[in-house]
This record gives sequence, C-alpha cells and structure tokens, in this order.
Amino acid sequence: MQDALLTLQKYWTDRGCMVVQPYNTEVGAGTMNPNTVMRVLGPEPWHVAYVEPSVRPDDSRYGENPNRLQTHTQFQVILKPDPGNPQELYLGSLEALGIDLDAHDVRFVEDNWQQPAIGAWGLGWEVWLDGMEVTQFTYFQQVVGQNLEPVAVELTYGMERILMALQGVTHFKDMAYAEGISYGEVFAQNEYEMSRYYLDDADVDAARAFFKEYTDEAQRLIDARLPVPAWTYVLKSSHAFNILDSRGAVSTTERARSFSLMRRLARETGALWTERRAELGHPLLKGDAATSRVRELAEAAASAPNVTQPVEKPEPAPTAAELGDAPQTFTFEIGVEEMPPHVLDATIPAVRDAVTSALAGTRLEHGDVAVVGTPRRIVVTVPGVSAHEPDSETLAKGPKVAAAYKDGAPTKALEGFARGKGVSVDDVVTAEFDGAQHVAVKQTQTGRGVLEVLGEIVADVVSGLRSDKNMKWNDPQLTFSRPIRWVVALWGKHVVPATVGSLTTGRTTYVARTAAQPHVDVAAADELVPTLETAGFVLDPTARRRQVVDGALALAKSVGGTIDIDGEAGLVDEITNLVEEPHGVLGTFEERYLELPEQILTTVMRKHQRYLPVRDASGTLMPYFVTMANGSIDDDVVRAGNESVLRARYEDAAFFWEADLKVPLDDFRAQIDKLTFENRLGSFAQRADRIKDVSMKLAASVELTGDEQATLSRAGALAKFDLSTAMVVELSSLAGTMAREYALKAGEAPAVADALFEMEKPRSAGDSLPASTPGALLALADRFDLLTAMFAIGAKPTGSSDPFALRRAALGVVSILRGVPAVAAISVSDGLDAAAARLREQGVEVSGEALASALEFVEGRFGHQLRDEGVSAALVTALSPSAGTPGRAAAVLADVEALRDDEAFRALVQVTQRITRIVPAGTQPGFDVSVLTDEAEKTLAPLVEALPDHSGDSLTQWFADASGLTEPLNRFFDDVLVMADDEALKAARLGLLQSVIAKAPAGIDYKELDRALDV
Amino acid sequence: MQDALLTLQKYWTDRGCMVVQPYNTEVGAGTMNPNTVMRVLGPEPWHVAYVEPSVRPDDSRYGENPNRLQTHTQFQVILKPDPGNPQELYLGSLEALGIDLDAHDVRFVEDNWQQPAIGAWGLGWEVWLDGMEVTQFTYFQQVVGQNLEPVAVELTYGMERILMALQGVTHFKDMAYAEGISYGEVFAQNEYEMSRYYLDDADVDAARAFFKEYTDEAQRLIDARLPVPAWTYVLKSSHAFNILDSRGAVSTTERARSFSLMRRLARETGALWTERRAELGHPLLKGDAATSRVRELAEAAASAPNVTQPVEKPEPAPTAAELGDAPQTFTFEIGVEEMPPHVLDATIPAVRDAVTSALAGTRLEHGDVAVVGTPRRIVVTVPGVSAHEPDSETLAKGPKVAAAYKDGAPTKALEGFARGKGVSVDDVVTAEFDGAQHVAVKQTQTGRGVLEVLGEIVADVVSGLRSDKNMKWNDPQLTFSRPIRWVVALWGKHVVPATVGSLTTGRTTYVARTAAQPHVDVAAADELVPTLETAGFVLDPTARRRQVVDGALALAKSVGGTIDIDGEAGLVDEITNLVEEPHGVLGTFEERYLELPEQILTTVMRKHQRYLPVRDASGTLMPYFVTMANGSIDDDVVRAGNESVLRARYEDAAFFWEADLKVPLDDFRAQIDKLTFENRLGSFAQRADRIKDVSMKLAASVELTGDEQATLSRAGALAKFDLSTAMVVELSSLAGTMAREYALKAGEAPAVADALFEMEKPRSAGDSLPASTPGALLALADRFDLLTAMFAIGAKPTGSSDPFALRRAALGVVSILRGVPAVAAISVSDGLDAAAARLREQGVEVSGEALASALEFVEGRFGHQLRDEGVSAALVTALSPSAGTPGRAAAVLADVEALRDDEAFRALVQVTQRITRIVPAGTQPGFDVSVLTDEAEKTLAPLVEALPDHSGDSLTQWFADASGLTEPLNRFFDDVLVMADDEALKAARLGLLQSVIAKAPAGIDYKELDRALDV
Repeated sequence: MQDALLTLQKYWTDRGCMVVQPYNTEVGAGTMNPNTVMRVLGPEPWHVAYVEPSVRPDDSRYGENPNRLQTHTQFQVILKPDPGNPQELYLGSLEALGIDLDAHDVRFVEDNWQQPAIGAWGLGWEVWLDGMEVTQFTYFQQVVGQNLEPVAVELTYGMERILMALQGVTHFKDMAYAEGISYGEVFAQNEYEMSRYYLDDADVDAARAFFKEYTDEAQRLIDARLPVPAWTYVLKSSHAFNILDSRGAVSTTERARSFSLMRRLARETGALWTERRAELGHPLLKGDAATSRVRELAEAAASAPNVTQPVEKPEPAPTAAELGDAPQTFTFEIGVEEMPPHVLDATIPAVRDAVTSALAGTRLEHGDVAVVGTPRRIVVTVPGVSAHEPDSETLAKGPKVAAAYKDGAPTKALEGFARGKGVSVDDVVTAEFDGAQHVAVKQTQTGRGVLEVLGEIVADVVSGLRSDKNMKWNDPQLTFSRPIRWVVALWGKHVVPATVGSLTTGRTTYVARTAAQPHVDVAAADELVPTLETAGFVLDPTARRRQVVDGALALAKSVGGTIDIDGEAGLVDEITNLVEEPHGVLGTFEERYLELPEQILTTVMRKHQRYLPVRDASGTLMPYFVTMANGSIDDDVVRAGNESVLRARYEDAAFFWEADLKVPLDDFRAQIDKLTFENRLGSFAQRADRIKDVSMKLAASVELTGDEQATLSRAGALAKFDLSTAMVVELSSLAGTMAREYALKAGEAPAVADALFEMEKPRSAGDSLPASTPGALLALADRFDLLTAMFAIGAKPTGSSDPFALRRAALGVVSILRGVPAVAAISVSDGLDAAAARLREQGVEVSGEALASALEFVEGRFGHQLRDEGVSAALVTALSPSAGTPGRAAAVLADVEALRDDEAFRALVQVTQRITRIVPAGTQPGFDVSVLTDEAEKTLAPLVEALPDHSGDSLTQWFADASGLTEPLNRFFDDVLVMADDEALKAARLGLLQSVIAKAPAGIDYKELDRALDV
Repeated sequence: MQDALLTLQKYWTDRGCMVVQPYNTEVGAGTMNPNTVMRVLGPEPWHVAYVEPSVRPDDSRYGENPNRLQTHTQFQVILKPDPGNPQELYLGSLEALGIDLDAHDVRFVEDNWQQPAIGAWGLGWEVWLDGMEVTQFTYFQQVVGQNLEPVAVELTYGMERILMALQGVTHFKDMAYAEGISYGEVFAQNEYEMSRYYLDDADVDAARAFFKEYTDEAQRLIDARLPVPAWTYVLKSSHAFNILDSRGAVSTTERARSFSLMRRLARETGALWTERRAELGHPLLKGDAATSRVRELAEAAASAPNVTQPVEKPEPAPTAAELGDAPQTFTFEIGVEEMPPHVLDATIPAVRDAVTSALAGTRLEHGDVAVVGTPRRIVVTVPGVSAHEPDSETLAKGPKVAAAYKDGAPTKALEGFARGKGVSVDDVVTAEFDGAQHVAVKQTQTGRGVLEVLGEIVADVVSGLRSDKNMKWNDPQLTFSRPIRWVVALWGKHVVPATVGSLTTGRTTYVARTAAQPHVDVAAADELVPTLETAGFVLDPTARRRQVVDGALALAKSVGGTIDIDGEAGLVDEITNLVEEPHGVLGTFEERYLELPEQILTTVMRKHQRYLPVRDASGTLMPYFVTMANGSIDDDVVRAGNESVLRARYEDAAFFWEADLKVPLDDFRAQIDKLTFENRLGSFAQRADRIKDVSMKLAASVELTGDEQATLSRAGALAKFDLSTAMVVELSSLAGTMAREYALKAGEAPAVADALFEMEKPRSAGDSLPASTPGALLALADRFDLLTAMFAIGAKPTGSSDPFALRRAALGVVSILRGVPAVAAISVSDGLDAAAARLREQGVEVSGEALASALEFVEGRFGHQLRDEGVSAALVTALSPSAGTPGRAAAVLADVEALRDDEAFRALVQVTQRITRIVPAGTQPGFDVSVLTDEAEKTLAPLVEALPDHSGDSLTQWFADASGLTEPLNRFFDDVLVMADDEALKAARLGLLQSVIAKAPAGIDYKELDRALDV
C-alpha cells in the first residue's frame, strides 16, 4: 500500500504535479479538499496529486465487511487544464503500479459524475480493472455552481480496491500495508471503533449542534470574505451531517434543508474564492515566467497539437495532376474518448444524416454514405466522390428590359447594373424572371475541388457533434459527450485538409492504446476500415453485437448452459457499445451463492457488472457468467479478476442474507420505528401503520375473500419491514423483493409474501402492477399516504424538483386504479380522504386546500399519462370529468377506442353533445309530457322514458340501448324550437332533453368526445 | 519541498518504517497524531514515518513573518523500540536530503521535551544545523502519564526550516515547493486567511462552545470504551482551545482549568487504549512471525548487540603468562549520546569518586584516578594498577578453647567446627577474640586477578551512573541522562571483560560519526587518550575551555574586537561542554541591526544561539559573533548558515521594533486591557492600575523628592504597557527591558524609563534590585498585588506546583525590602494590606485569613532565603520576630555579623537572654528604686535608668550604650535572688530587669541570638 502511494506520487510528480498533503479536516472524498474544489475554479493552472483518506460514516461496517471501510484511501490527481492525453497518462500510472495492461481488461465505463451537495458535475468514466471499479475519471464541467474554464481533469484512485486486486486478497484486513505488516494490523481497531462511533455512539444532539455551529461559522467567514477558513467549516458541517445520517437521525426534510444550506454555503465560498483569486491577480497565471512550471504546463497544454495523436506531418497540397479526375472513396474517422453506449447509438445516424445532407448541398457526385462506429471512433465512408464539382452558370437579374433601354439605348439603370457586374452593356442578355423580361448577366461558377468541399464538411460535422449531455475539454471550440481527440480524413490517397478547434485532420489513426504501434498511418481512404479491422476492431455495431452474442452463447454452451439473449437484450446492446473488440470470458462463482434469491444475483451481475447470467435449459441460473472484455487480454487474469469482484459482492450479499434470516420479521418491523421518515410525519413505522389502516379502509369498498382479508391484514402488519434489513440498507432497489423473500423464508403464507412484494409496484412507468387485490390495496394505501402527507406539509413538487417522487406516486395510483379491476371502483378522493383521516388521527393537520391540491395533482398526472400514451388532447378533456376515478375513465376510454369507427356511435355522441350545448346548466331531467305539442317531441318522449338509466354504465351498454334515439333526437332538433315562448313548453322540452343526458354514461364531456371522434 | 518529503519517506521505509497519512483533524504537532501518542503506549513495536501539517494558531502572522507560519510541515518518525542507533539513522536521513555532514555543523543540543497538556516527557536534543534548530529528537519516557516500556524514539523534522536552509532563502514564501512553483504560490493565501481567522475573525463564543462539546463527546466516548474516536475529540478540543487562545480569550485560570481537563481526558484515553490493545491480545506482538516486519525489527533491536558499536570480537581470556605481573595502566571510556553540559560537569567528579572508592575497596595497587570527558564520552585513566591482589589470610573463629577440648581431647563442638571448615581438628589454632581464647582456622584468600576486579568496577560504575534527570532507552538495565552506547575498558593491552546491561566491554572506541573510520581499535590502555586526541577531541574540559576562549578571542581580535570572557563565563562553560573539538567560526550581521537595543541582540545570541557577542574596546557591541562548531567543518558553509539564522531572528526583532515604535505608549497601555490576567481579577490593565495605586500608597511612608513623585506617577500610569508590544509578545523575557527602551524612544524621562525597567526586578534569585525608589515601590506593589490577589482567590502554591510563581514574588518582596534602603521601613503587612484594600475597591473579596496566610507565606520564604544564604537556623529563629519587616531584620543581621566575634557583645547578649528567661511574660518595665535592698541591684538601677531607649535602634547603637550593663547585670544575678519572698521586692527586681529588655532593640529573640552566637 505505502509503496503504491509512493509510486503514484513519484509518477505524477514526474509529470509535473505538485504533491500536497491530505486535508486536516475529515472529508468524504479527495474532491472536497480545497486543493481540488477551490483550485479548479478560475483561470489559474493547477496540477496536483495527493493522498486523501476519505471518511464515509455510512460505510461503517465495524471492519467486518471485506470491502467496505468507513475510511478508505483515495489518491487524487487534478490536471487543470486538461493536458490532452489524460487517459494515456492515467494508463501509464497503472503500469507504474505494476499492472500489465496487455493482460488485464481495463475499460472506461460511462459515468456522469455529480455532487449536488456542492453544485458540481462532470462527465467521464468509472475505470474498470477486470470488472472492478478502481478509479473515477471525470472532466469537471461545473463546481460549486461555476462553469470551469479551463476544464479540469480529476482522477480518483480507490487504493484499497486496486491493491486488493493486485495482491489477490479478499478481505481488506489481509492486504499488505507495508512489507510484513497487514492493513488489518494497522487499521482494524480504527475501523471497529470509528464504526461504533458513527453507527452507535456518536451523540446525536452534539452532532446536530455541531452542524448548526459549523454552518453559522462558515457563514460568518463568508461574510468576512475569508473563503479558506469558510471552506473548512463547510467541510466540518458536511461531516457532522454525515454522522447524523449514519446515526439514522436525519429525516427526509431535514436532509433536504441541510443539503440546501450546504450547497448555498459551498456556492458562496466558491464565488468568494474566485473573487479573491482575481483580487490577488491570479498569482499562478502571472508570476515570473522563467520559474513557473505550472504555467509552462498550462501553456504547453494550450498550444500543443493534440498530444494523444502524434503531430501530423503536414502534407503539401496535391497538384491537380496528382488529384486526377477520377472519383475516389472519401472516408473520415472521428476519434473520441470512450463514448457512452447510448451516445454511440445516437451519433452514428446523426453523423450519417449530417454527411448526407452536407454532400447534398454540394455538387459532388458520390455514393451512399455509410457510418459505423465503436466507443472510440465514428467512421464514415462514401464511395465514388468526384474530384471536383462541375462548373455551373447562373443569370444575374438586372432591371426590366423596359427600364434598361430607352429608345434602344442603354439607360443609366442598365449602365449601372453592367458596371456593378463588371461587364459591358453589350454583354447583357435578356431573360424572363417571374414572367417579366429583364436584362441579365450570365455568370459562371467554377466547381470547387473535392478537398476544399470535403474539408468544410468534415469541419462542420465534427464541430456540430452533440449529445444529450455535452462537455468541454481543452479545446475551446468543441463540445461533445466526450473529448474528440483526432480526425482522419482521406479522399483517395490524399488527406482532406481541415482544422476544427485545435484539431487538424491527417492520415494517422489510433488503434488500441496498448498496441506496440498505437498510431498507424493510413495510405488511402479505402484502407482505413481494413486497417482498423486488422487492428481487431469490429466497427459495425450490428456485427459487433452478433460477435458478442455468438461469443457469449458459445461460452455458455461450453458449460452446458445458455443465455437468455432476448431477455437480456438491453444489456447486450449496452455491452456491444462498451467494447471495440468483443472478447468474451467465462467466469464462475461458488455454487453456494445460488442459494441466494435470484434477483440479488442477477441484479449484481447485470446492473453492477454488466455480466450476462448463464442459465440451464430450464432457465435456472447456473454458477457462471460471461463478461465481455475489450480486445486481447489474458483470459485467466481477467477471469480471476472478475470472479474475485463477483465473489466479493456475493459474499457481501450472503453476509447480509444470513444475518437477516436470523431476525424475526416482527423485529425488523419494530426496528423501522428508528428510521425517521419525516420530522412532522414520524417514523417509517408510523407510516407503515398508516398504510395498513388506509388499506383496510379502502378494502371496505372492495370485494375480498376471507383469505384475501387475512392476507391484507398480515401483510399490512409487516408492511415495509424490509427497510431495516441489511440487504435493503445495502441495495435499496431490492426493497419489496427482499420483503417477499424473507417473508417466505420466515414461513409466511405465499400470498402475504406476494402482497409485500406487490405493494412496492409499480416501481416506474411501464412496470407491472400488483397482481393480487391485497397487494393492490397496500400499494394504493402507500401512495395515498405519501401524497396526502406531503401535500399536507407543503412539500409538493415544484418545477423540476420532486424530491419525494410524488409524480411517480401519483402515476402509481392512477396505473393501479386503471389496471387492477378489483380496485377500479376506488376514486382518488376516496384514497386521499382515507389517508387524510388517518393522518389527522396521528395529529397531522391536513387542510381541505391541501387535499384539493393533491387531487388536482393526481388528476393532472393522469392526463399526462394519457397524453403520453397517445390519447388525443380532446379525448383527455372528454374524460376529464372521470379523472378522479381512473378505473372508470379507463373503461370509458376502452369503449371509445372500440366504438370510435362505428358511425352510429358517432351519430349518437354528436346528437348527445348537441343536447349539452343547448340545455343550460342546472336543468333538471323530467318533463310534463302533456305540454308537448310537436310531433317530433311526442315521438321522442316515450322513447326517452323507456330508456334505462345508463349513467353508471359503459358507453357500450348505453350505445346498445340509446342508439335508437339518434334519429328521433335529430328530428326533434330539426322540427322543434326548444326555446319556445311558452315557458311551460320550453321547460318540458329542456327537461326532456336533460333526461337523455341524465341517462347517458356520466363522467364524460360529450362535446369534447364528439370533437375527439371527429379527428 | 515535495521531493524532500518523498526522500524522507523513502529513506525511512527502507529502514523498516511504515508510512501513514497525516491526521484528518487539526493537530498542533505530529506527536498528537494517534500514530504517535497512542502507538507509543504498551509493549507493541511500532516503526512509522509520516508528514504532519502542524497547526499553531498562535503562530499566525498573516504570512508576513519570514519564518513563522500558522501551519508548518513536520516530518515525524517513531522508532519503538529504540533501535540502538537512532542518531546514526537520523544523520543518514540528513545525508539523504543532500546535506553534507562533513561541511555542516550538526549538533545535538540538550532539550528536555515535555508536553504537560498530555502528561508527556522525554529527554533528547534539538538538532542544530549550522545554528538552526531543524529537528526535535526525543527518547519518550512517559506519554499520557504512562511510563513507556519499551521506550520510543521520536524524530520531528521541521521541514520548512530545513528547506529554507538548504535552498538559502530568507522568506518561506520564496522556498521552492516543487519544481517551478514556490511555497508562497501554494500557501500564501492560506496563511493570510487562516491567520485572519485565528487572530481576528474566529467567533469566540462558537470556539468556546466547541471546546465544551468536544470535551463532553470525548468523555462520552471514553465511557463507551472507544479510545480512537475519543482521541479525535481530545484533539478537536485542543484545537478549539488554541483558537480561543490565539483570539486572546483565555484567562489564566481558564487556561489552567482547560489544561487540567484535557490532560485528564488524554490520560483516560491513553489508559483505555492500553487496555483495549491488551484485550485485543497486542496484535503487533503476536501475529504470524513469518510476516511481521515490525516484530522482526523489534526482536532485532532487543537482541542485537549495540548497533552503534561494531560487534566486539570476543578475545580469549589471557593466560597468566600473558598478563604478567607488572602493573599496567587501566583506562576505560563510557560512550554516551550527547550529554547536557551540566551533566558532563557533574559526571566527571562522580565517576572519579566512584572509581576511587571502588579501587579503595580492592587490594590492588594503583596510581591516581584521572577523569576527563566530552559530551559523548567519559574517560577514566588509572596508572600503575597491579596485576592482581596479594593473597591474604584470615582466622575463622571457632568455639572457646574451654569448650573445644575436654580433657585435652576435641569436643563435639570442635569437631563440628572443623568439619564445617573442611579441616582436621589438628589444623585448628587458638587465638584471642575479644579478649577470650577461641579455637580458629587459618584461611587464605587468594588475591583476585586484575581483570576480574576491574571488570566488576567497570560494571558497577557504568550501571551506577545517574544524573538529575535520568531516562531509559533500549537497555532494560541501565538508566542515565542519555543512552550509554559503548564501553572501552583496557588494562595494559588486555580488554577488561565486563557486561553491563546489554553492553559488553571491548577495545573499540567511536570517534567522530562523520569520520571515514568512525570505529577505532585501541591497542592498549595507554593509547586510548592519544587515539582520541588524534581524532581531534580535547578531552580535558579545562583544556577545552581554554581552546574555546583562545579561539574566540583570536577570532574577535581578527576584526579588532574582543569578548567579555568573564561576563560570559556561564555561556563559555556551556559552550565548552557542547563540543568535543571546539572550532570557532566568526560570523557577522548587518550593522543596521545594531540600532536595536543591545539586550535584544545579546538575548538572541546567548540564549537562543549560544553565540559569543563581540565587542570593541569600549564594550560596545560590534556586528560580529563567534559560534563554536564541533570538529572540522567547512567554515564558509557553517558561517553562512549561522549568519542566516541570526539574520532571520534579527529581522523578526527589527520588524517588531519598527512596528512597536509607531504606537504611542498610552495606546499600548490601553491595549493591555484586552489581555485577561485572571477571570476574577480582571485584565492586565486592571492589575496595572492596582499596582500604580498600591505603589502610591506605599510611597506615603517613604521619603520621596518631587522628581521621584512625578516619576512614580508617570511610570505607574504606564506600568506593564509593554506586554502588548509585539516584541514582548514574541520574547516575553524582554518585558521591562522593552518598556525602558520604548519609553526612552517615546521621549519619556529616563527616570520613568528606568522605573518601568526596575519594576520587573529582581527577575530571579541573585538578580539585581531596583536602583531607584520609584522602581522599588512599583516592584513591591507589583508583587504585593500578585500575592494578595492569588491568596485571595485561593490560588496559593501547593507542593511543587506554583503556577503563578508566587514563591519568586515573595522572594522579590523580601529582597527589595532587605536590599533597597529607601523602602526598608515598609513591612510586609503594610504592602499586603494596601494591596488588599485596593483589590476590595475593585470588588475582589480578600479575607483576613487569606491575608494572614499570605503574610506567613512571605515570612516563611524570608526564612528560607536566609537559610539558603547560610544563616544558621538559630539566627533565623532569633530574627523571626522581625520577619515581617525584612528591612529591619536585615539590619539586625548585619549587626550580628559585625559583632559576633566581639566577646563583650556576646556577654551582653548572654546576660540579656538570661533576663528574658527569668522575667515572666507580661511583666512591665519600671521599678520602685526604694524597695531595692541589695548592693548589686542598687548599683544597677541608676545605670538602667540612665540607659537610653534603644528598642528601635540597631544592635550596634545599643551595644555602644548597654555594654556597660553587662558586668552589673551579671553581678546582680550572682548576688541577688530575683524571686524574693517579699512580693514588692520581687516586683521591683523583675521591673528593673524588664526595663533592660524594654530598652534593648526590639524584634530579636535574645535567647536564640545567644544560641546562634554560641555556635
């Protein structure tokens, strides 16, 4: 360990970094050391490296977890500005540590780093060493709310992970810290005791007081314009907050409030730092030029050609003879640092479109534009591009002929026009423009040469590259998902000259970083793709995906298994775009881990490791996985590394699993009383109690069997118990899943276990819904409680901020009411009212206004949901009277979809809406038939009287009975003046019409429905 | 800088140290990092090295002071156990840093390190590099109140100092931190802002709250048995205290209370740590022996022969023939790491006495014992030691002859005796024992060989070495002022074999550490001294002192100056014992510094640097100094280094001087109101006000001229103003001195300036007294106020604890009252009463009991002082009635000394004390002459009546008049029975005698005086 730290210090000092000491205040990460968080601000250069013991109270495990420590050792490097080749420098540091890059699988896996607590974000990667994340690599874009100019590169090495991997040990305690002394010997007691402190013994009141006083002092120091000490107090407050958090003493609202305060203090401190550096005249920019190494580096970085790529040898412009007249292939390659998979997916068609349309704007002949790509390159090939544009002629319009000549002689107007065009008046011709005769001048455009035209296209395409998230690096003129580092552009054997940002096109491509010759010259356009393929790359994503699939299946087959390629389609797509040269490696894990619930195993494999799980013919998991390495590596080394990573993760999971199984469910349920949900709303136990009670109340309006009632009762009593299990504390995405698993293991009825699982559903839009009625009732109660409670305390979502995920909760409510027939009759108001009543019992004030607001919110979300599903705005409006009963609205919607092409239905709706237009609001149904005078109304009246009341029925049922009214109603409107002078008659006619409406299905705006059907 | 840190890390890891990170909580020194303060406790080995940015809020200077930083960089090394050669290892590290030990003057200068705040102490050195302290080198003996077993060696490098010296820069900002980037560029803003925080902007209430809460949390964690987190809170509380202190918000009592609390917490945390390590089974002692490097080192250190010394080649015991019979010189050398000068002074005679008396206990013939020595060695030489003790005979006493034979035949008693002695009954003889005839057996003691006898002596002398402060190192059986590392012992050419502790005697001595051959074999005893002299050492302190003096004078003369050798005698003595091979180097400093007050210049030279100031013929300082280097060095290098050190110190002083001169005295005086003296007693300004008022009150009983009154008034108004000057804040020993200098510069009258200077006198026993009456009055008022105030609040000295130096204050009072005639009439009570009255005005409660206690305390101190001066106990008792008026007592004492050999005086005293024995207490003087009957009394009475009243006079005056009474009084006692039966007669006789007493000088116990004169 200590040797590795010394090695890294030496490596980075040799590359121009200063070494400084760790900060003497607890920090959660090297980023928080002012040598990063402050020094990256402003224009001054800063190259620094340091060790940072990083304290994460939340990661306290008493030293028992093999991989997790409350204090772990980061090695932090900041390169500001970006030197142009930070990936290469980084890889060099791994080699310095003794890591053989030819043997190991080192990958740059997308990671969009952000730290909202300090208003910071950047784009970059997790660096994986045989599947283990060993370094965070980020191009900082913004810190403490300030855009960075220049951009800084941050490298954060996780030293324990690197060294455990290098030393091949499975528990941090067994790592050699120095020769002959283990990490455990040095730090085990520290881990145990600090864990005790953070988890059990820290005084909560004291920590809260510290937080308050630290933030106060920080504010005072900001006011005194002292950013340096202010920052130490921001750090201290952050640590105090972390202690509170690890002691489980932070409620949701307190968390939000504290973060907001810390973020504000961080921003103000950063702003002050920037001001102060400016006041000091940016000393690191200005000192004596002869002595500032940092400045030299900065200048070198700013002025150097792209250091990733060897300097392109400028080639003399070819003569016309050299160019020739024959069409040639045009190819160009945009070299990028590892793009995220979805960016590659989007960039290939974007480049194709851009090149295609750019070529269309020229007069060059050319073949079809083909674009392929890997994470590191986009390759464009266009065959048969002509050597130059043909010349063309145009007519420049002059005055009308009538004005050009007077008495056959040129007028002043003509003379002026000719002079302006540089021709004699004798050279003008006449031509028709818009039907009128004008004088005109013929002008010849010489066609441009191919290199000029293509050069512009290359420059435009490269500088026009964009992604959903874009970043800056050391090139002030470019912006993209990741840095663009080189451009190859060839037409035939000639370089297409172009300059874009600080890049110049050339003929040198960049193959694998570990290749003996990483830079390869390409003789001609047609050789680019073969060159890259020779280097091992599979450029076409489709072919690459096939290679991934074939390779994985073959490996699975070698152990008698297979891979559910369709089921893992998303993962396969992602893997395809993580590598340039897919190289599958089959790994295994101990069979005993198969005793763990499958979802744990696959969650770890897929989500954390991007491994493909191997199954047997019956679909059962086998103790194997396939990882897709990049390029040629040493299979045994990479296999061992990945197996070790997986083992550690499974060991963790097994540890939690075993520990959890020892605890009775009711004990877990009791323990969630210690987890604060929200200050004013109490603990999670109180919330679970409310969910249970609300679900029982909602059950009253639902048909439940005796078994279902028993299930609901027991599941309600256990609701949310798994929040206090170790597994869910660790992997929160398994909440509900683990409830089911543990309930089954504890001998609960399967229906109870399922209900506990289902109450967390749907987790997201598109997720499946609760299958059982008890599950659905609990899921509804959960969300009704959350919505009502948060609206009651004024924590409703605003703008893009929805910290309590109320939008998702509202959508969950709507989806369940729409999708689970057994609960479809429940209205949103029913649920909110029940939740409100229960909250009031607990002493929480819930105003009528809050309830109304919550209702409106849920209804609004329903409308959004429908629109997202493609339902027309008119139809959504037509359904809006039912928005409070999504179950009903859904039924109506289904009927509309079924009936919308039926002319008779449309006619019925049309006439119905006609009634709603004419009958004033508040008109009562019913009428005195004796008053009626006209034939049409007399015919209509008995039909109306005979019509059954369909107000609660479906459109289909109504349509079946009421379609016979269409014609009589239309006749009525044709023949009868509703608004008769005789008041009694008018009343009877209105009453008659209103009776029709009263018997029509309620909850529908027929005017809007008519409009919707009209579309 | 960063290279140096990497170099040291590498150097020490190569020597088996672990490298750890600085602590992530502010610490004042690397010692406070638990990697030192906890790990040195208990039996486990621990070799560690780390960088520690050390925070000293008090040293905040806004980055303006060239040498002082609120955060400086320590490099800390702990070697536990002592590897046996830490000095050599340390010197190796300096070489690794590129320091040429042959050119530079590296010296180990006594430093007895202690840190009462954590109950820690140790013995060792400051290491000087050309006069600059660059490292603290300590053998820890006790930490957090625990004795260390094994002892740990601590090395603390001051990196900024080392690097400024190496780089030859004079301001820390100019140091290169890394290639091309200066220290200032990296840290200047930090220094400025953190200084602002510590000195100006830290919120005092917040810091106080932090202190309270940190100590509370520490206590809770101790109670929870978690020493690791507890220690972090001890550190945090210490830092909070330091912030309060640098903000000037800590009063004397608060300081004492806070230190006491922190010390207790530190002790408890340390005790808990020790327990916890024992509970954990001391992992670093016990682990797998194959892998623990630390344990290996420990074992190596424990079992290895002394590594400072090459392994002695065991020599075969010489045969008798080889030894021969001729007397030979015996010599032995005790090799020690650098002893403090006073220890060397004491050890030479102690060794001489020990060897002399040990030889006296043998029967070896020998010459005189000669002992010489240097800081690193004590060398004993005894010529003519015989080769063996002569044989001797003794008689073993048996039964009385009468009991030995019965009828001429041996009794059982005789047989038993003979059997017991292993002889036949025929071999017994008879002899007289205590006048009785016994049987006896003749026994011959064979004289032992010289090697055996001397070996025992060597072992006894070495193991018996002791100093005033002794320490342990890696030798469990030895203890001394500093580690003993080798012993050479030779008789003739033979090694005197002996083992003492882990040392074995041999013939290899150790010359200069930098010598090409540092270990030299000595062929024979007579060659030891020549060998060492050849190596350059001046072994005899007298000769060495002469060399120091001659060298220094010659150097001074070379620039036309001289050195006041007599005036600097103490310093010359010290220098003599700091070096083995005195090598004077003359240095210079800029003349402009001579404008500073001389005392500043000489204080720095003498006290801080051990330089001899050079003066011209008139005694005026010249811009030169002489430093005495050790051994051969490069004069230019050493000169430059020392000049640079002195320049930095003078630059500091000049900076303060200039700054102070800009401030009016009254402003300084006003500023001391911000310095808390003591919570209950107010600020230093309030104290100064009290001193002024008390001095005026005391002045009422003293004759003052108008000028003197004006002087007293003005000086009183300015009293203590210099406490807020920068110079005194920096060099507190210059308080008073600077008051005088600044007062003169400000144009105050010289008498006022002198009074301000004198009021701080005497500073210590033996210091000169105030020369002027105003000065004396202020000095008295100062001390009376201090004594009264402290006794009033119950802060009197207890045992060895005297934090407010009240003993010194009491001695000061006594010395002034004795030594300054103008104020001799003032009694201690007068002063204490005046101070009490003034304190009460301020609202401080002063009880009568407290006053009485203060008076008793001062009188007691007076008695001690007299005894220390050699006054007999009897005489002190005789003077005790005057102890409250030391002026009077002193006069009496002087008279006694003058008169004590005068027989007539003694006779007068004798007869006077006779009166005091016979006359009952309470007897009134005066008598009725007519009642007297006897001749003798009638003769006496008129003489008594004629005697003037001398009760207030001196003994001399009384003696002049009263000596004529001696004979009549004696006759009276011979002839007259005082206790006559006639009451009237008895009363007249007693009244007559009492009249004699009443007219004798008061304040004297004549009985005790008589006894005193009798001695």
